[in-house]
Amino acid sequence: MTTTLSASEGAAQHSIRVRRLGIDTQYEAVVFMHKECQVCRSEGFTAQARVLLRSRSAQIIATLYQVNGDLIAHDEAVLSEPAWKRLELTEGESVTVSHPKPLDSLSHVRSLIYGNPLGESAFHAIIGDIVDGQYSDIHLSSFLTACAARPLDQNEVLALTHAMVEAGDRMTWPAGVIADKHSVGGLPGNRTTPIVVAIVAACGVVMPKTSSRAITSPAGTADTMETMAPVQLETAEIRRVVEREGGCVVWGGAVNLSPADDILIRVERAIDLDSEGQMIASILSKKIAAGSTHLVIDLPVGPTAKVRSANAAQALAGGLTSVGDSFGLKTRVLSTDGTQPVGRGIGPALEARDVLAVLKRDPKAPADLRQKAIALAGALLELANAAPEEQGETVAAGALDSGRAWAKFQRICEAQGGMRNPPKSRQQRPLLAERSGRVVSIDNRRIGRLAKLAGAPDEKAAGADLHVRTGDLVERGQQLCTVHADAPGELAYAFDYAEANRDIFVLADS
Amino acid sequence: MTTTLSASEGAAQHSIRVRRLGIDTQYEAVVFMHKECQVCRSEGFTAQARVLLRSRSAQIIATLYQVNGDLIAHDEAVLSEPAWKRLELTEGESVTVSHPKPLDSLSHVRSLIYGNPLGESAFHAIIGDIVDGQYSDIHLSSFLTACAARPLDQNEVLALTHAMVEAGDRMTWPAGVIADKHSVGGLPGNRTTPIVVAIVAACGVVMPKTSSRAITSPAGTADTMETMAPVQLETAEIRRVVEREGGCVVWGGAVNLSPADDILIRVERAIDLDSEGQMIASILSKKIAAGSTHLVIDLPVGPTAKVRSANAAQALAGGLTSVGDSFGLKTRVLSTDGTQPVGRGIGPALEARDVLAVLKRDPKAPADLRQKAIALAGALLELANAAPEEQGETVAAGALDSGRAWAKFQRICEAQGGMRNPPKSRQQRPLLAERSGRVVSIDNRRIGRLAKLAGAPDEKAAGADLHVRTGDLVERGQQLCTVHADAPGELAYAFDYAEANRDIFVLADS
Repeated sequence: MTTTLSASEGAAQHSIRVRRLGIDTQYEAVVFMHKECQVCRSEGFTAQARVLLRSRSAQIIATLYQVNGDLIAHDEAVLSEPAWKRLELTEGESVTVSHPKPLDSLSHVRSLIYGNPLGESAFHAIIGDIVDGQYSDIHLSSFLTACAARPLDQNEVLALTHAMVEAGDRMTWPAGVIADKHSVGGLPGNRTTPIVVAIVAACGVVMPKTSSRAITSPAGTADTMETMAPVQLETAEIRRVVEREGGCVVWGGAVNLSPADDILIRVERAIDLDSEGQMIASILSKKIAAGSTHLVIDLPVGPTAKVRSANAAQALAGGLTSVGDSFGLKTRVLSTDGTQPVGRGIGPALEARDVLAVLKRDPKAPADLRQKAIALAGALLELANAAPEEQGETVAAGALDSGRAWAKFQRICEAQGGMRNPPKSRQQRPLLAERSGRVVSIDNRRIGRLAKLAGAPDEKAAGADLHVRTGDLVERGQQLCTVHADAPGELAYAFDYAEANRDIFVLADS
Repeated sequence: MTTTLSASEGAAQHSIRVRRLGIDTQYEAVVFMHKECQVCRSEGFTAQARVLLRSRSAQIIATLYQVNGDLIAHDEAVLSEPAWKRLELTEGESVTVSHPKPLDSLSHVRSLIYGNPLGESAFHAIIGDIVDGQYSDIHLSSFLTACAARPLDQNEVLALTHAMVEAGDRMTWPAGVIADKHSVGGLPGNRTTPIVVAIVAACGVVMPKTSSRAITSPAGTADTMETMAPVQLETAEIRRVVEREGGCVVWGGAVNLSPADDILIRVERAIDLDSEGQMIASILSKKIAAGSTHLVIDLPVGPTAKVRSANAAQALAGGLTSVGDSFGLKTRVLSTDGTQPVGRGIGPALEARDVLAVLKRDPKAPADLRQKAIALAGALLELANAAPEEQGETVAAGALDSGRAWAKFQRICEAQGGMRNPPKSRQQRPLLAERSGRVVSIDNRRIGRLAKLAGAPDEKAAGADLHVRTGDLVERGQQLCTVHADAPGELAYAFDYAEANRDIFVLADS
């Protein structure tokens, strides 16, 4: 164990051998060292200290946990999986440990807290440190709370968006028009993206769609698409697909677009705080970084959706279009019905089944999903001047009904690595109505939780399949939905939850 | 492994065997479970999830880390030390694991963020959940940031203080007048408390002082006092000492006074955010809970102290006195010189040496420490009507010079378990002036860091001993301070830091 001194900082750097124990801390970099190891003693590190770790190829800030007993030797450091991966380590290698540099950008956060306006450089410093992993949850939460308590003005939202774009990669495309689509989310099912891409690409507008996997929802677009074709493509492969078919639906994780957004979103979720400025910067930074030029945003509004009032929707829409425009991103926002799930399936394979039914023009395909996909594709075609105003939906419907969208989708899947059939679940059990009456409401969050307890999204075939919509009349004993799972245990467990939360479906006398 | 269901919540509770590996996460409750264990799978827990753990005697919220490989078996959960202790577990016992109840009080935090005034019940709900360990760092940081971004008004500070007092234990005393003293801190040395207690008690005013150990500083009053007498007393023992001698200087940790404060302070430190409202509630809630009736606050002001401007000091002083009064706590704030350390020693034993020198009337005792202790004791005696206005310092000085304070201090130490001599360090090495000139400034934070690198406060004899004060003229090669340590390694390491940070002492041409 060596100790060197960089006089500039006066911070000693200790080199220590690393070990891997497969500890998954999700995003958080954690290092475990023995309480009595010389690094901790001479650096005066205490448990929970933030320490700077350097490997040959990278450096990160990690949280220190100290261990007594013989789990860890005095001369080794155990790293959590995220730390291990970001430092690109191999077993037996060494890292240097030291005190991290003071977080100067925190002074900007405090300045924001105390009500002072923040400029470009301040946001760049903050976002830069965030992407470098310098901010702990405490710092991230403070920044996000300040942005909500002292709402960012238009200039600050611009600066924040710009900083978030700059902090990651940017994609560029040969075509002049790059169509994109975003859904603000909070709505189970609602799997319009594969349909919209198929329609828009079929109409000759380039739409290279990078989508995310589920974080808290039962399925992300990437999870659903993956049941029909490979989605984990490298940038070069993505380009080849788009060049060939004019569209794709791939996982965005392979491309490092607006990495700050991924970090901030997790914390926003924990405080359930969506400040307008943050939402605008979060949505637009990803799209700008993706090289999009024309964007349609699906903004579901409803009591259990993310945006709950028409006023909030209007304010958000105004901000999104004006900020988008100032980046040369033509943006149109559609306020949509967020009162209940869209489509029938909730969970990757079940949603894929609905998507395929709409594309194949199956008469039993969910009408709401078809209509919503047409509305979004139509708006996008109008925005991109690929359809006359007021004619977008007609053009989009034509692409669907003629089978061109379905043909395009199959070619896209082939280009992404080969089309496949969504898996079917091994276990199904229907949830029955306990009384007769009219379906007054369906709880978006609870039906989503039910699908997750059944195993979605990890188990692609798991989830919930809705048989009723609000307004329907049902008889006592009629099926409200079917729960799909792979293991009997998970089926039973999801059912326990459903039985205990009957108000997922609220029935009333008609 | 059993699974039961409480229909009310629809949350399954899984029972799982616990194991201890001595993992110190300081305050944070962490539970490690195998990624493939049935609890994680059926509950759909992901890494970093917050989970509710119940033992026979207690329940806590913990952060979940998931482990692959064979470090942890599928049917066991490893708990970090804080989780283990708070659940009062013994090896091989079982705990139940489930989803925690939704954090309803977060709606109050969001309401605060959005600028709405908060009432008594809201603060009680927030502080209650904080003390229950329901708030993660993200939640705590959001609450503290909101209190700074949208400054609390007087009523809210009152409500917050009240909630913090209610959330813990309260001490009551037979005497009608209970004197207390607090220093806002940020100043190394400055160990006036033992002297003030000795003087005030010698003058017949009851002063049961509970003090803290160092958290980030090289020594807390409890650490320093412990080198002269035992400080870890149970409540009953504390009462006996105070009954007998009218005063004590003990560690407050044995008494559960304003536990929320301990939790919040850690996060405030991480964002380096001291909102006035939080500071007032933090300081006063402890004193009110301790049953104090008369309080003098030492408020050091200086560029490297906690409070940096006279204006900030004045605003804080105004808030402290008015809020204190409304709780029937007579409060006087003394703005003191915070430009450099007080006394010579920095570190438990070295500070104790200074305290004893003052009490023993050693002619070489540091004059600034003596004078400051007299000023604080004097103010307290006047406030408690134990001395006429303007006469407090005279009365206090009399108690010191007559030896009554020294005699009282020895009796207090005996009552606390027996007086002892502070230990002496094994290693000393002087830091020499590199040039001649006048001492322009001494950096409080850096000299504190130096003392900590030398081993303070864990090693009681370690620290720094100042030989100069600002304004002094020094010759090249003259001793500026002496670094004390127990191990040669730590002495060398502290010295590396001192060499690399020569501006701890700034010298200029005179």
